[in-house]
Amino acid sequence: MYRPEIKVVDCTIRDGGLVNNSQFSLETVRAVYKATCEAGIDYVELGYRNSREFFSDDEYGPWRFCDEDALRKVTQGIDPGDTQVAVMMDAHKAYASDLLPADESVVNLIRVATYVKDVDKAIHISQVAAEKGYDTTVNIMAISREGSPTLDEALDQIESETKALAVYIVDSYGALYSEEVHFLVEKYQMHQPTKEVGGHFHNSQQLAFANTIESIIKGANFVDGTLMGLGRGAGNCPTELLLGFLKNPKFKLRPIFEGIQNAILPLRDKLIWGYHLPYMMMGLINQHPRDAIKIMDGDDRDGILDFWRQVTEEYGE
Amino acid sequence: MYRPEIKVVDCTIRDGGLVNNSQFSLETVRAVYKATCEAGIDYVELGYRNSREFFSDDEYGPWRFCDEDALRKVTQGIDPGDTQVAVMMDAHKAYASDLLPADESVVNLIRVATYVKDVDKAIHISQVAAEKGYDTTVNIMAISREGSPTLDEALDQIESETKALAVYIVDSYGALYSEEVHFLVEKYQMHQPTKEVGGHFHNSQQLAFANTIESIIKGANFVDGTLMGLGRGAGNCPTELLLGFLKNPKFKLRPIFEGIQNAILPLRDKLIWGYHLPYMMMGLINQHPRDAIKIMDGDDRDGILDFWRQVTEEYGE
Repeated sequence: MYRPEIKVVDCTIRDGGLVNNSQFSLETVRAVYKATCEAGIDYVELGYRNSREFFSDDEYGPWRFCDEDALRKVTQGIDPGDTQVAVMMDAHKAYASDLLPADESVVNLIRVATYVKDVDKAIHISQVAAEKGYDTTVNIMAISREGSPTLDEALDQIESETKALAVYIVDSYGALYSEEVHFLVEKYQMHQPTKEVGGHFHNSQQLAFANTIESIIKGANFVDGTLMGLGRGAGNCPTELLLGFLKNPKFKLRPIFEGIQNAILPLRDKLIWGYHLPYMMMGLINQHPRDAIKIMDGDDRDGILDFWRQVTEEYGE
Repeated sequence: MYRPEIKVVDCTIRDGGLVNNSQFSLETVRAVYKATCEAGIDYVELGYRNSREFFSDDEYGPWRFCDEDALRKVTQGIDPGDTQVAVMMDAHKAYASDLLPADESVVNLIRVATYVKDVDKAIHISQVAAEKGYDTTVNIMAISREGSPTLDEALDQIESETKALAVYIVDSYGALYSEEVHFLVEKYQMHQPTKEVGGHFHNSQQLAFANTIESIIKGANFVDGTLMGLGRGAGNCPTELLLGFLKNPKFKLRPIFEGIQNAILPLRDKLIWGYHLPYMMMGLINQHPRDAIKIMDGDDRDGILDFWRQVTEEYGE
């Protein structure tokens, strides 16, 4: 009934950090960490390890940098079980030199996020991280806007030049339909016979969980979720739905519900995520959600007709 | 790029009426009617035509009965374009004798909702409605709990004994995954070579739109949506997402966004629908959402851990 190879990555704090500049309280991060460890999730991503050259401590919380002592405050006193810690590095906003040797670090997995245009930077970080003893993945963002031959070449390069465990399809714009997910998983498999395919989907069109399922059906073995879907714009595939689907008895749902009750439900009054028409519109026209986020953060979030006029004029669709 | 055979049914007022006992203002119903007509949607379902033997006027609004004069107040002065009016009759709560001859009625399409156990009642209503000049569909509810051979027999009977245009897969519990949708569409097609397959999906697990797409890919040609997904529990497939996917140039999105802005967004403070953990839990364990609706209507809607304990104990899963 289940495929034991499938690895689940909970990225609540990392992708959720795009909603609140990574300003989660330590208590919230510990609650998410505890929930994912008790639930038997394979990896919990506790934030970005990005450089202070691109982000200031004034504006961004500790989970944008994930200093080792901040991570230790999260993990101390909590039994990790088989759960390992991941952090994300943006290829264009992070430096491999910010990595300690893996055996001195709380972190096991470095996920390198990149646009196709920055793939050489991503490969460099992946290589250095591997030399320092980390596992890595390469996460190709905005995939709905990338096509052959540039994407194919990037995939070939990652295949031959890195030790990444998995290469991700990242639907940053929440624009993909199932047939496109099928196509991309097959493309990745064709170009990367030694690597797993990963799936990270956004919920602009309410397809994040569905596309995760479709990627799994086609063979993806690394899949991302966040508690209650917390994440940028409309958010992500909800971890609770994903575990319910996977049926692997090593996963437990109750700790996830407990984590949601304690850590995520209290955030609903402060943070906006989930299905909203401005996010849906940007997904539909295959665009970054940033303009929708601006509208949702302002006073006229229900002015959806004006917003539709504006974005369809602007993007000419 | 698109399949012209596909018919879209907007059932905002009918399924949404399960959230508020069909107590929509005339203004709201007219706004939805106008939006769907301008958008070029094939059918707009304006409520139930159920019997006052089962529902009282004190408790339920006019859209539970859809008397002809109530419907005329909705449609008057609005250009219908090619949009036709549908109403739903519950096989076990409605009488075919409540139907005028079709040429004296605002209604074109009678959708008969039924459980498999009531299929003979549904067939009777479908037959009488056809004799009076209506098109009909038969909508088989709670399909995730039905299996062979009972379902197969019901499908064979509907095939041979009615003139229904389509027979629907109705995922009342929001429990189906894509592979089950594929299986059911194929089963329906096998048993009903002269009828179209219809798809109506609930969003308990955020799969209503995705499952609608999957049913279409397999050949379903009648599909349901509601504006912004308004409907019982977690709600339905959002009409705006569906039209965006279908790409048929006869459909227009702007009137839908206008209808949402004018008629649906103002309801958010009064009505609860969309993704909530109690609804998700009932979908996951393949149960009717009624217990979740009770929790969501009460004071402890964030007590999800207690609710999970209660339902998993009660249903033994």
